[in-house]
Amino acid sequence: MDDRVREHAETLVDWSARISEGDDVVLSVSEDAHELGVAVAEALGERGANVHTTYGSAEVSRAYLRAHDGDFDENPEFERALYEHADAVLRLGGGRNTAASADVPSETRQAYGKAREGIREARMDTDWVSTVHPTRSLAQQAGMSYEAYQEFVYAAVNRDWQELADEQAKLKEVLDDGEEVRIVSEGTDLTMRIDDRVAVNSCASVAYDSHNLPSGEVFTAPYATEGEVLFDVPMTINGKRVRDVRLTFEDGEVVDYSAAQNEEVIREVVETDEGARRLGELGVGMNRGIDRVTDSILFDEKMGGTVHLALGRAYTSNFPEGREGDANDSAVHVDLITDLRTGGRLVVDGETVQKDGVFRWEDGFDG
Amino acid sequence: MDDRVREHAETLVDWSARISEGDDVVLSVSEDAHELGVAVAEALGERGANVHTTYGSAEVSRAYLRAHDGDFDENPEFERALYEHADAVLRLGGGRNTAASADVPSETRQAYGKAREGIREARMDTDWVSTVHPTRSLAQQAGMSYEAYQEFVYAAVNRDWQELADEQAKLKEVLDDGEEVRIVSEGTDLTMRIDDRVAVNSCASVAYDSHNLPSGEVFTAPYATEGEVLFDVPMTINGKRVRDVRLTFEDGEVVDYSAAQNEEVIREVVETDEGARRLGELGVGMNRGIDRVTDSILFDEKMGGTVHLALGRAYTSNFPEGREGDANDSAVHVDLITDLRTGGRLVVDGETVQKDGVFRWEDGFDG
Repeated sequence: MDDRVREHAETLVDWSARISEGDDVVLSVSEDAHELGVAVAEALGERGANVHTTYGSAEVSRAYLRAHDGDFDENPEFERALYEHADAVLRLGGGRNTAASADVPSETRQAYGKAREGIREARMDTDWVSTVHPTRSLAQQAGMSYEAYQEFVYAAVNRDWQELADEQAKLKEVLDDGEEVRIVSEGTDLTMRIDDRVAVNSCASVAYDSHNLPSGEVFTAPYATEGEVLFDVPMTINGKRVRDVRLTFEDGEVVDYSAAQNEEVIREVVETDEGARRLGELGVGMNRGIDRVTDSILFDEKMGGTVHLALGRAYTSNFPEGREGDANDSAVHVDLITDLRTGGRLVVDGETVQKDGVFRWEDGFDG
Repeated sequence: MDDRVREHAETLVDWSARISEGDDVVLSVSEDAHELGVAVAEALGERGANVHTTYGSAEVSRAYLRAHDGDFDENPEFERALYEHADAVLRLGGGRNTAASADVPSETRQAYGKAREGIREARMDTDWVSTVHPTRSLAQQAGMSYEAYQEFVYAAVNRDWQELADEQAKLKEVLDDGEEVRIVSEGTDLTMRIDDRVAVNSCASVAYDSHNLPSGEVFTAPYATEGEVLFDVPMTINGKRVRDVRLTFEDGEVVDYSAAQNEEVIREVVETDEGARRLGELGVGMNRGIDRVTDSILFDEKMGGTVHLALGRAYTSNFPEGREGDANDSAVHVDLITDLRTGGRLVVDGETVQKDGVFRWEDGFDG
């Protein structure tokens, strides 16, 4: 087995999920994530954990959902009991076709999700972590060869996470102390309030309340957004390619929008509900192992030198205890990314924290 | 998708497991059984069942078991809860390598099985059914091309099971009414008692207490065995090829044995414990879709025109209510097969029931 697969598995089990002896672990293996599944099972065996392995197949789900009449039983007890008693859920993504579920009607998908809200909550109450095994399907989505994509994934995943966590702690401190963030770049001049919010140091470990591997971002929940922003990183949203999205904010709400491609996708998002017109997240990508766009939000939003803003639902982890009710509420959470590496600036309370993608504590910062 | 895969899935869900709306079904998909998994998920969706899909990978299990120190937790609650609340467990076999677990120490395997006895019991308390998807690995084990093996499997699986159940009911009646069975063939002249026993009509449906697809046999629990038997169908037992096993019985116990290849395997079996010297099962294969040996007990023992005898543990389903305690007890249950199609006879209470593999109710019977 490729040493990088073993290192990925050990990072997942030890750094991310903090598995210890006797933990009850649900291991979800996607169609083409078999090799990583073997490596993770080996690591879990070494740690003395208990393992129940599930098959995360988009093709199996699609067949089931399309055949069902849509009147789903609520939170079937056998599956809820499994997750309620589990300590951790490790999800190894990596299917054979990123469009495998494209013909499942969205009503069916929503009805299924709604009927299983209790199971989702039980799963979210565990030390869950999602990662992906580099597959040919994901390489294709990224427009990359398989070997180049493997190198890309392992550069993002197999790194010194403690070092990155320590660096990210610096930005968390700036954001926790700060009151106003301003983002300036070509086509962008946006300000937002962040006082009374708690920044999350998202470094791919449940010990930091971070559940994706890779991660590598610091995020908070902004409000009172004013100004204009251009998202110059292309994205696939609801299966459609979207380019050069522009949003105009007044009093914290989107008052105008446009896109160079598939503008109707943005309209659908913004019109979902009231909360979808407000921002739920400001995230700052800090993973320098991710140096290119691969059309996968798990990676793109963590790219060092970028920031992302999400329309819709905020994470309660960004609010002080007892103030979680202030979190922006919406059925959607749609991330959009802008690259600050050429001519961009991130400013907190009037002081430049990052210029041209370089933080002020890094070599080459020219504030 | 191949229509035969869909028919296999529908047979499993409807005839074998009798799934109905609202059933909680655990679907276990082996490494190369994906296509059948998709078809079964579709059938389960149509029936309105709830599905939890597990990954039955020998390579994942091997990695876990070899890495573990062998001191396994007893019946981890998360997994026991899943099976205790499940209505049915459908296991789709078909891995990538039938020898994938060959280097897992048998002590580890036994310790794991012992620690999970409660989970096994919970699973056995459901309407469980095991089947296999025809894979290249199983074709190789059978010494057959992939296409020929697919044809073989579907001939065994996709058939009129009600018709076979009705035919098997005839033999069940003969055995239920009978007191003594005699098997005569070249190298074989064996008698055994079967009074006070209940024959099981094993026709691949939980409605008949039959849990394998394919099935196609009638079996009972003999005792007081006397005489000699030659098993002329080659078998793989504990990973080793065994040929031409001969056993001599006196007073119901093996008093002599030999084999033309790997005789030590038979010695190990017979010396396991006291019950391993006695027969636990007499089974009569009646599935005419199975017309050749493929080195898989799931198929071989159901071959029409053969009988099999198992050393060791008896099934309690062969005993009248309250008499289950009479079942022969042993840590092993090892099936051995003899072909009666050339010169063999199956005789119950002095009357020939089958000659040269042809039952007395079939055309061509020459009793």
